[in-house]
Amino acid sequence: MSQLLPTPIPLPLIANAIAAMRARAPLVHCLTNEVVQDITANVLLAAGASPAMVVSRQEAKDFAAIADALLINVGTLIPKRAHAMRDAVQSANRAGKPWVLDPVAVGALAYRTQFCRDLLNERPAAIRGNASEILALAGNASLGRGVDSGDTAEHALHVAKTLAQQVGSIVCVTGPTDYITDGNTLWTVPFGSAMMTRVTGVGCALSALVAAFLSLNTIPPMDAAASACAMMALAGQHAASQTQKLNAGIGTFRVQLIDALDLIHSDTIKAWSHE
Amino acid sequence: MSQLLPTPIPLPLIANAIAAMRARAPLVHCLTNEVVQDITANVLLAAGASPAMVVSRQEAKDFAAIADALLINVGTLIPKRAHAMRDAVQSANRAGKPWVLDPVAVGALAYRTQFCRDLLNERPAAIRGNASEILALAGNASLGRGVDSGDTAEHALHVAKTLAQQVGSIVCVTGPTDYITDGNTLWTVPFGSAMMTRVTGVGCALSALVAAFLSLNTIPPMDAAASACAMMALAGQHAASQTQKLNAGIGTFRVQLIDALDLIHSDTIKAWSHE
Amino acid sequence: MSQLLPTPIPLPLIANAIAAMRARAPLVHCLTNEVVQDITANVLLAAGASPAMVVSRQEAKDFAAIADALLINVGTLIPKRAHAMRDAVQSANRAGKPWVLDPVAVGALAYRTQFCRDLLNERPAAIRGNASEILALAGNASLGRGVDSGDTAEHALHVAKTLAQQVGSIVCVTGPTDYITDGNTLWTVPFGSAMMTRVTGVGCALSALVAAFLSLNTIPPMDAAASACAMMALAGQHAASQTQKLNAGIGTFRVQLIDALDLIHSDTIKAWSHE
Repeated sequence: MSQLLPTPIPLPLIANAIAAMRARAPLVHCLTNEVVQDITANVLLAAGASPAMVVSRQEAKDFAAIADALLINVGTLIPKRAHAMRDAVQSANRAGKPWVLDPVAVGALAYRTQFCRDLLNERPAAIRGNASEILALAGNASLGRGVDSGDTAEHALHVAKTLAQQVGSIVCVTGPTDYITDGNTLWTVPFGSAMMTRVTGVGCALSALVAAFLSLNTIPPMDAAASACAMMALAGQHAASQTQKLNAGIGTFRVQLIDALDLIHSDTIKAWSHE
Repeated sequence: MSQLLPTPIPLPLIANAIAAMRARAPLVHCLTNEVVQDITANVLLAAGASPAMVVSRQEAKDFAAIADALLINVGTLIPKRAHAMRDAVQSANRAGKPWVLDPVAVGALAYRTQFCRDLLNERPAAIRGNASEILALAGNASLGRGVDSGDTAEHALHVAKTLAQQVGSIVCVTGPTDYITDGNTLWTVPFGSAMMTRVTGVGCALSALVAAFLSLNTIPPMDAAASACAMMALAGQHAASQTQKLNAGIGTFRVQLIDALDLIHSDTIKAWSHE
Repeated sequence: MSQLLPTPIPLPLIANAIAAMRARAPLVHCLTNEVVQDITANVLLAAGASPAMVVSRQEAKDFAAIADALLINVGTLIPKRAHAMRDAVQSANRAGKPWVLDPVAVGALAYRTQFCRDLLNERPAAIRGNASEILALAGNASLGRGVDSGDTAEHALHVAKTLAQQVGSIVCVTGPTDYITDGNTLWTVPFGSAMMTRVTGVGCALSALVAAFLSLNTIPPMDAAASACAMMALAGQHAASQTQKLNAGIGTFRVQLIDALDLIHSDTIKAWSHE
């Protein structure tokens, strides 16, 4: 298999995608875990999208066809919710709406691992996880334990490329540097802050943001997915810089992160990318 | 049907109701959606009420008789929760405790729409929703999609009046201006900020606050419901003003909103109403 | 029964335990209520531990053996979750991992009261509650109503000591002063702020922090449990002091509390203990 050349996503491309996403304000149907619903909704709202959590089997199927994109996150998977997720995914596929898989803590836990692998047959538009989750989803040994990655993103790159080709999805491996690949090309997002791993749900919310960007018809999917990762990473980098200036802690960082997602635009992107 | 004269609720009436609510610190039993439980509880606590989420069918019925008021919010309705809600509503009615219906996203989704319409037979003390939700609940066509209103509050006014008369409830249609009617009189709340629509759960939490105010025996129900709306709208208006002064974003706004609900009192109301 | 001499936990002991907890970064499996999952996860992260909410019966059992400690909180107990909790507790016990019981609102509500009393047979490493909850769990009359205590911690002390001896657990009765006893010795934590009762989930998150500290092999369990209470109380005291300096409200306090949990260390503890 040929080597993919990692290329940092250009700043103007990010700015353009953010503007397009805000102009569209996509409605993102989130079937996500119990812990992160508040931050997921608030991240989408701050970024300019519109969240909706419609969770029952009675309604999730109908709503997946109405919404612009669908997120499936298995962090607190239970059987009833798994049924609703399967229905919603099939409904989104029939309606031509993209859906994103976030395989939280896949690997150590058999029930969700099997569920996620089965869902790969429904071909997610994108998969977003940390290195351990991507390795485990693809059937490789991983060092994950709970939601933290025990593997480096670089170690997962080869597996991510193969997974992307086999499933026909974009795979986003997030970490200190994010890698986004469809198996043929490879964008990197060299921004972010370790503080992002110390607020619950930042990764989960990013997956919802990837779904929002993938609903745009005017932006190529690889650019859309990478721009979502870059929007979050640049906001996180700026929020960390602001937090340090204030000698503050991780509570302030969370507020600054939501502020930054609200305030990021073409003029601030360049400055924030150097912080 | 005669025209209702919209009258802005007087500031001293709001201040009086807030003081009465804080003196009573009502215990509000919230059967609400998965997304907004944190902000709903924190809004009630900041305002001076006491939240409690008791959700199982085994317990919700008993607790509805113990608490001072009950909130029913169908944002993430599932069948088991629907059973608990029905039991709780009947228990609250038997115990003479007011209950409030928040018909989140009613209209597009058949399951929750039928559930809410059925619950109208149990006569909520108040119904709080955006224009699209109120129109849809009353059986009219609406432009809602998810939780956002596609209709103006003004457009829903006539329907709200009729709904209030038919059900025997107070109907609160919230938007840039809030309208509160029992079918005979009409209070308006001409405060607020568009930022309130960019934090998840502000409307849902307001419905819980309406329940808290309606538990007061010393305040007429129309004044109580309108004062709850005014408390939230004034806090939102002030929080938006503070956020703009700080050149900050929607993360800061959420913190300022909770602060404002904590700090609002008779002296600040007048100043904040002009911001 | 002899009188226990209440002894304030020494500051160096707290500092030492905090450093040990951060060095270990224990993974805490939280089976907690719907309302407080966000703040529980963020408190653990800010303090230096790692949260994971794995909730299904299919997975909770396996995960309880993987994690370093387990939290059981019955705030929004439903039958399916109760099954998962029982499985997880037994799995933690078999694996030699400590588990903590938070008997939220036990007393008024029969279903959860019976569930918690049954769970005492599985011998939690610690029980953390307010005075009314501890009194009710032990079978005494209490004045609790919802999540607020109607009794003073001092009134519950004798009962807490007996409960600790009978169950073989550490009992933490939290309030303006916290009391931590194993039936033989009695630590007190004379720090904190009334503001901590005005943010939802601070007590629930503290129970998770107690679990994190109890997973340390190098710290005696009584010191570990008391240090968790002291870490939260000192952070709360400092956050309240900061909030007052800013003339801010309870929204700001929540941010400052998470910041303080992040920033507390051996140098700040002494200063904060005098605020």
